[in-house]
Amino acid sequence: MKTYFILACVAAVCISLVAGYNVSLAAAEDGKVLRHVVLFKFKDTAKPEEVAKVEQAFCDLPKKINIIQGFEWGTDVSPEKLSQGFTHCFFLTFKNAADRDAYLIHPAHKEFGSILHPYLDKVLVVDYFAK
Amino acid sequence: MKTYFILACVAAVCISLVAGYNVSLAAAEDGKVLRHVVLFKFKDTAKPEEVAKVEQAFCDLPKKINIIQGFEWGTDVSPEKLSQGFTHCFFLTFKNAADRDAYLIHPAHKEFGSILHPYLDKVLVVDYFAK
Repeated sequence: MKTYFILACVAAVCISLVAGYNVSLAAAEDGKVLRHVVLFKFKDTAKPEEVAKVEQAFCDLPKKINIIQGFEWGTDVSPEKLSQGFTHCFFLTFKNAADRDAYLIHPAHKEFGSILHPYLDKVLVVDYFAK
Repeated sequence: MKTYFILACVAAVCISLVAGYNVSLAAAEDGKVLRHVVLFKFKDTAKPEEVAKVEQAFCDLPKKINIIQGFEWGTDVSPEKLSQGFTHCFFLTFKNAADRDAYLIHPAHKEFGSILHPYLDKVLVVDYFAK
């Protein structure tokens, strides 16, 4: 009976994890998730610690804005020399356009803009529904 | 006994699926996968069927180049008007920089370039290790 109970618990935990996994996969596969691609070029006068402050402030956004479903970033390492000066890429995922819209006007996003602005040379944003 | 067996089977299947899920998550989380972000702006003279031909040719690459670990794409739907004219985003994932390098010189990639070139106005490429 004890083994039965343990197995039932294991099965329940696994099923819930797998269900969550499949929901996430389905969301990505049916072309409905919205990717939000943000590129930055910082001013030449921006100090490394100022750039790091902006990076950290962006990385803090998912904790403050729970409709951000995916977040990753990195700095350019392409050997192709086609980055047009952009050095940073932030890649966010939203469930849909309504959540992206809500993100754009979220107070925490606006606050991030004010942290970024003094050091920003140029920005590029492209959003797409992932096919 | 029958119930015990069914539960054991369910648990085994779930555990294997969850294990696969976690391996995939770990690959993304340890900062080792390389994202290859490609933006296109087509010439104003490019006809819709010519653009569609290029889209299809890019989408065919993962079938021809098996080191492409992830592939998705879409057209810009951002309301921010910060796309600098870029309309298409292709988002590829490689295991590491060596695979990205091999992709860049792969004959199928070179062939794609020749299909793209007549219709291309500008291109932007940023690669980053996903943090």
